[in-house]
Amino acid sequence: MTKSSGRGGRPRASSRRTLEDAAGELFLEQGYARTTIDQIAQRAGVGRNTFFNYFATKSDLLWLDVDDTLRALPEVLAAVPAGLAPSAALREALLELAARHPHRGIPLALSQRETIGAEAEFRASGLERFLGVAAELGEFLAARSGRSPGDRLVHAASSAAVAALVSGAAGWALAGVERGALVEAVREAVDPVCLGYAPLLDAGPAVTR
Amino acid sequence: MTKSSGRGGRPRASSRRTLEDAAGELFLEQGYARTTIDQIAQRAGVGRNTFFNYFATKSDLLWLDVDDTLRALPEVLAAVPAGLAPSAALREALLELAARHPHRGIPLALSQRETIGAEAEFRASGLERFLGVAAELGEFLAARSGRSPGDRLVHAASSAAVAALVSGAAGWALAGVERGALVEAVREAVDPVCLGYAPLLDAGPAVTR
Repeated sequence: MTKSSGRGGRPRASSRRTLEDAAGELFLEQGYARTTIDQIAQRAGVGRNTFFNYFATKSDLLWLDVDDTLRALPEVLAAVPAGLAPSAALREALLELAARHPHRGIPLALSQRETIGAEAEFRASGLERFLGVAAELGEFLAARSGRSPGDRLVHAASSAAVAALVSGAAGWALAGVERGALVEAVREAVDPVCLGYAPLLDAGPAVTR
Repeated sequence: MTKSSGRGGRPRASSRRTLEDAAGELFLEQGYARTTIDQIAQRAGVGRNTFFNYFATKSDLLWLDVDDTLRALPEVLAAVPAGLAPSAALREALLELAARHPHRGIPLALSQRETIGAEAEFRASGLERFLGVAAELGEFLAARSGRSPGDRLVHAASSAAVAALVSGAAGWALAGVERGALVEAVREAVDPVCLGYAPLLDAGPAVTR
């Protein structure tokens, strides 16, 4: 808590980081529910409008490193080699995404859950992210497998894959200092899903559906 | 909308059903957000306290048939033959659960989504149910596989299985009048998950973990 708090004159590029720090401090000092956006902006030495230049809602501040990683998903998907079978491409994308996440990037809502007390908000805002990732993976799987984006198998596979990803990542985040590598936790969780859907996903488009 | 609205003197056993009907009418007439618990109780001809005898929140009224089915989960799990391997036991439980659900039991929030406009509430209250079912399946899988309830593989498998279950059930619910049997849609979605985790789940407890 010795970091300097910004008060004007600070270069624009650091406003985002200053807001993140201010929010983290306030959440730890007084809990998530009692912290307002105005308080965060005031602590960061910026106006309320500046807050909304960087964040859409207060709950975005529960997801900082995770959101940075998820923003890379389109790039990760585009970089998956075209020659891979759909199930292997899905696996590759999930492991690459995990590999990009910073080792210390554990949401405060998990690492400081008792202090911050944001469980319901964290779950609800997590669900939005879950559904967003599942939709992106669904489009990717559809394109790679020659199926339609509304295909039931594509939907089930992408849903199950994200659930396994979240399970692996949450287990890793809650495992304490000996948590090892995220990519290993994710591999352990998602490999069976990719394996299980492989015979159907990799067989090409369904003949009638 | 020709059903009689209750006004006192009605036998206690039907208060629940009367409240369900009143809520459904009001949601369709004026949307979910604008309907209050007091309005539902008034339309049903009962007091506010009676409402809370049957439902904890307004959002419970979005899940009627689904909640009836989910309440049977402990019974379904207990009835799964002891001789089945853990992955086969998981599959059996999910299919039996789907088989018990009434064919017309599609949540109004899905079948009348534009009219009712409860998407955010439906998602959030659905997440609570998702996590509850995943926890129940996790305990079941742990017991059947000789692993601990906190085991990572058990957590990933139960999460992925529920995600596939929800995917299959949602696809079925949204498929319109030619939706076929729920159990078939669920089978198609969850079979790959059970297949994929089978080699690990069915191999017995991990030696070191």
